[in-house]
Amino acid sequence: MPKIKFSLLSIIGGLTLLSSSAYAGVDAEVSYILNTLLFLIGGFLVMWMAAGFAMLESGLVTSKSVATIAAKNIGLYSIAGLMFWLVGYNLAYGIPEGGFIGSFLPWSDASAVDTGYSDGSDWFFQMVFCATTCSIVSGTLAERIKIWPFFLFAAILTGIIYPIEMGWQWGGGWLSAAGFSDFAGSTLVHAAGGAAALAGAIVLGARTGRFGGKGEAKPMAPFAASSIPLATLGVFILWMGWFGFNGGSQLAAGTLEDVSSVATIYINTNLAAGGGVLTAAIISRLIGGKTDVVMMLNGAIAGLVAITAEPLTPSPLAAIFIGAIGGLVMYFSAKLLFKLKIDDVVGAIPAHLVAGVWGTLAVPLTNGDVSFGAQFLGTLSVVVFVFVVSLIVFQIMKATIGLRISKEAERLGTDKAEIGVIAYGIRD
Amino acid sequence: MPKIKFSLLSIIGGLTLLSSSAYAGVDAEVSYILNTLLFLIGGFLVMWMAAGFAMLESGLVTSKSVATIAAKNIGLYSIAGLMFWLVGYNLAYGIPEGGFIGSFLPWSDASAVDTGYSDGSDWFFQMVFCATTCSIVSGTLAERIKIWPFFLFAAILTGIIYPIEMGWQWGGGWLSAAGFSDFAGSTLVHAAGGAAALAGAIVLGARTGRFGGKGEAKPMAPFAASSIPLATLGVFILWMGWFGFNGGSQLAAGTLEDVSSVATIYINTNLAAGGGVLTAAIISRLIGGKTDVVMMLNGAIAGLVAITAEPLTPSPLAAIFIGAIGGLVMYFSAKLLFKLKIDDVVGAIPAHLVAGVWGTLAVPLTNGDVSFGAQFLGTLSVVVFVFVVSLIVFQIMKATIGLRISKEAERLGTDKAEIGVIAYGIRD
Amino acid sequence: MPKIKFSLLSIIGGLTLLSSSAYAGVDAEVSYILNTLLFLIGGFLVMWMAAGFAMLESGLVTSKSVATIAAKNIGLYSIAGLMFWLVGYNLAYGIPEGGFIGSFLPWSDASAVDTGYSDGSDWFFQMVFCATTCSIVSGTLAERIKIWPFFLFAAILTGIIYPIEMGWQWGGGWLSAAGFSDFAGSTLVHAAGGAAALAGAIVLGARTGRFGGKGEAKPMAPFAASSIPLATLGVFILWMGWFGFNGGSQLAAGTLEDVSSVATIYINTNLAAGGGVLTAAIISRLIGGKTDVVMMLNGAIAGLVAITAEPLTPSPLAAIFIGAIGGLVMYFSAKLLFKLKIDDVVGAIPAHLVAGVWGTLAVPLTNGDVSFGAQFLGTLSVVVFVFVVSLIVFQIMKATIGLRISKEAERLGTDKAEIGVIAYGIRD
Repeated sequence: MPKIKFSLLSIIGGLTLLSSSAYAGVDAEVSYILNTLLFLIGGFLVMWMAAGFAMLESGLVTSKSVATIAAKNIGLYSIAGLMFWLVGYNLAYGIPEGGFIGSFLPWSDASAVDTGYSDGSDWFFQMVFCATTCSIVSGTLAERIKIWPFFLFAAILTGIIYPIEMGWQWGGGWLSAAGFSDFAGSTLVHAAGGAAALAGAIVLGARTGRFGGKGEAKPMAPFAASSIPLATLGVFILWMGWFGFNGGSQLAAGTLEDVSSVATIYINTNLAAGGGVLTAAIISRLIGGKTDVVMMLNGAIAGLVAITAEPLTPSPLAAIFIGAIGGLVMYFSAKLLFKLKIDDVVGAIPAHLVAGVWGTLAVPLTNGDVSFGAQFLGTLSVVVFVFVVSLIVFQIMKATIGLRISKEAERLGTDKAEIGVIAYGIRD
Repeated sequence: MPKIKFSLLSIIGGLTLLSSSAYAGVDAEVSYILNTLLFLIGGFLVMWMAAGFAMLESGLVTSKSVATIAAKNIGLYSIAGLMFWLVGYNLAYGIPEGGFIGSFLPWSDASAVDTGYSDGSDWFFQMVFCATTCSIVSGTLAERIKIWPFFLFAAILTGIIYPIEMGWQWGGGWLSAAGFSDFAGSTLVHAAGGAAALAGAIVLGARTGRFGGKGEAKPMAPFAASSIPLATLGVFILWMGWFGFNGGSQLAAGTLEDVSSVATIYINTNLAAGGGVLTAAIISRLIGGKTDVVMMLNGAIAGLVAITAEPLTPSPLAAIFIGAIGGLVMYFSAKLLFKLKIDDVVGAIPAHLVAGVWGTLAVPLTNGDVSFGAQFLGTLSVVVFVFVVSLIVFQIMKATIGLRISKEAERLGTDKAEIGVIAYGIRD
Repeated sequence: MPKIKFSLLSIIGGLTLLSSSAYAGVDAEVSYILNTLLFLIGGFLVMWMAAGFAMLESGLVTSKSVATIAAKNIGLYSIAGLMFWLVGYNLAYGIPEGGFIGSFLPWSDASAVDTGYSDGSDWFFQMVFCATTCSIVSGTLAERIKIWPFFLFAAILTGIIYPIEMGWQWGGGWLSAAGFSDFAGSTLVHAAGGAAALAGAIVLGARTGRFGGKGEAKPMAPFAASSIPLATLGVFILWMGWFGFNGGSQLAAGTLEDVSSVATIYINTNLAAGGGVLTAAIISRLIGGKTDVVMMLNGAIAGLVAITAEPLTPSPLAAIFIGAIGGLVMYFSAKLLFKLKIDDVVGAIPAHLVAGVWGTLAVPLTNGDVSFGAQFLGTLSVVVFVFVVSLIVFQIMKATIGLRISKEAERLGTDKAEIGVIAYGIRD
């Protein structure tokens, strides 16, 4: 953080204020406060994304598994906070320069101030990113994974798997040294979450009857979404939260340049999401004959995920393009997953893994400092690492404590079997 | 923006700091950052209003058109961003001083900094206002307008109609020169959106059976609101977002006076909304015998819309009064629309058009610098312009591509006919 | 507010900038702006909690009383704003030092600036706390209290009862003089709201059939929660809002120390909530056999309430502990209330009153400047005062205008009887 530079500038600036530029640098303490506020405001916006995932997933699962997915989402967010404090943060940021793994120590707020911002605000901001990675997984595995084994996986993902791969880049590890670029986590967060979800979906198998006797799944009942407006609310929440996710990842707001960059990031983030919505709407209308609202919702997410790797350098038109392609790859990969009989209840793998890979590989299109080779290396490393480790963890859990609910529980619904409530008392 | 003044002040201030005021002016770069932050925070709050409209409208339509209205809301917000970039912004702000129309050029972030704030942050803030104007329209026309013609109208409204009339005032055009005053858009945004909605409702006609054989519409089934709590959530979201809408319209937070004004605006905005809620509750209880929650919700909106033309100069008592009258005019104009057999599904015309006109005309009551004549001129010009142009556009669309869904689609519901889903899987 | 100190510091700091610390104090006007922004941002986040309570309560009541609870929540928030302006603020802050009660005058924004922040922003921030106190009450009394008598009680609570006890501490009254400590209102807001709710629940009695003939209440139908996902949304909203509630209660963000404290408060608030969720999940699974999602939701609230009395001094581990115990006392007191046949529809008494008392008494565990004696005195005084006064007010209302709806209205549901709608048109 350019602390000393600003102190110098403010004195020089003071003397030359009338004769030259009116912008003469910001006092270091003011800069510290503004940087910290960016983390705090960005932090509560990204925290809010946990609610977005909870609503999206509650809306898209069938009505007999809604209370379970709500419980999983609030539970995983709670676990993420505890695990990122207990082990995650130092595993990521205690990494040696260019290294592979940090230390297994709990984070302690040393009240450090010499970074140019409150270390506590940074911890909070990083923690909510960690939680987001796990939120992505819960939707894919809904309606068939047992709740406590899911919580155990959430602890492993947020405490160990995510922090290790994230540290490779944002902790200053080997990927960072290799020239990889991922501004706010198209790969580190979204593709990683999607890769863990894919591993889980493979180990768990599909919901009973999803790819039934006739080889054709019915998109409607008995697999109808419980509430489209709640799913829509979830996507609006995610969209709002993404201004914190991408905007906060500028990591500073204490200079004219930084805060102007945050503004550009807001614009590109919004335009990319819009591009994703509209291509998904158009393609679903052209191919399927109906304007598929669920595809539009996942199109928004795909556009947001795609722009996340580089929301600063694209022009508005490029941002729309990146988001629009994000919507397209989401649409076709969703169809592919369906053909492969991989049961992704909410479509998180197409929207987060596939669009995340697209967005990361697209960075060199608008950022000349980044090479395709480094992007390919980074994406591949992170996705393979998270996928393989998750696959192993899920397999071990399956062989020991068990992962999947009983056929009887699946027939009843997880809400009655595991939570002991019905989600919508409306039905009575 | 008072850039030089502050630079001077900070030097003078530095010398006289101990002997005179402790408040000696803010460094120009800090001021720039704070102004930009106001736009960004205000911007994400107003963006959030798109979710508020989506929830309000999803809650108030019947359950067979909920997924459609969700799709329309996320679609129109996406379209607004693209169109405001492609043509809207420069149509409004490229206007000659005192003129009628700007240029048809896409906006390009010239990274301009000499306005005292990031131009990008201003674009984002203005864009979400543009989207709000369109959100108002979708609810009124629900359950009978085809989705793609609606999207086309959304593109025209957000790209052309709104930017033209908005430029008259906020772009420095002829209305601004005529002394019109509309702080945050009671007329430019809300009455305009309501006028477009009214035009659409007239061209489309009412839902089949709404003003049926007996000449009496049933407020309950088959026209029951799908979810009162979602509608309530929508209004709370709008209320929250309005702090960004009105507070951000101070356009600066880089001085003691500006940020104190934002605080006053928060207070008046909140009190006016409360006034609208309570008069709607009381009047519906007194006249109808029941405490009508939908009227309370629209009362909140009416109060918010009414205070939007001038949220800074009123005293707390005056703000309550302006909001309370807003609730009253909303209530009686809703009854009038019903008698006129104009089918406004969610009550947007009374809450946005009528309360917006009231609020704009009320500005001179608390702001001595503003004349009733100018207010009358501005309100009339904007409402007539938007209404007439929208009417023409809707009529052309009706005569060419068609506006209204088939009788069969209306019987099935737009969700099954156009989107291919049921909104609430709960029913199965 | 340390206005002069900063002015001095900035001059001294300017001279010694290169030779000593880079953090040399913030200009008084910048500090003023940042303090005001903390109140405004914190304020809209706490305002948002009103929506959280509305969703939590709409989700947890039965489907025939949902529109009523929505109307009550938006109504009480409106009333709180008006009453806190009309009488509440000066009743609290017009208190003589060490005294018992302030003046019955309306608040007037004197545009005062010599406090180091905008007085208007402070009023707004305090007003939303006042509204929160009342939101707590509505859920407990749902499904059987008449709407207009409830609004009358809301006016008395927000205009008189809450301001009086709040002034004892935050207005500089006798409790403050006695050394009591309650950072953001575990007792002043949450235990107070819970105490008023308990008084109301006792006077009103339980819902018909709740503790029916067999002496056993059925947790499921006919007392099933109308929508678990809406209740979950409500808790996520509250969680988000709590960053404003506790973070804003630092009351300043204009120095490095203040903004760093806000960051620490965010962390502790989040960890305590997570602790409450997880203990509630574990204990409900161990004792009841199911992972009770409603207990998890109230566990989050209990954790948040518990940390509110002191979110700054605890270590992360201590914050988790305080929240976890909050979840435990909530769980067991909910069971106790049930045995006592006190009908608390949403569980607000365990989550706000009991966890609030725990959190307040726990302050000396991490804050050496606070004594158990003072905490005991403060908690007891506030809870007894609010409980007794509320009990008297409810009894007078019961004996005069009537409090409880008729048996017939209860059978129909308050939505049909009082509001004249059905909340979920889905059913038709």
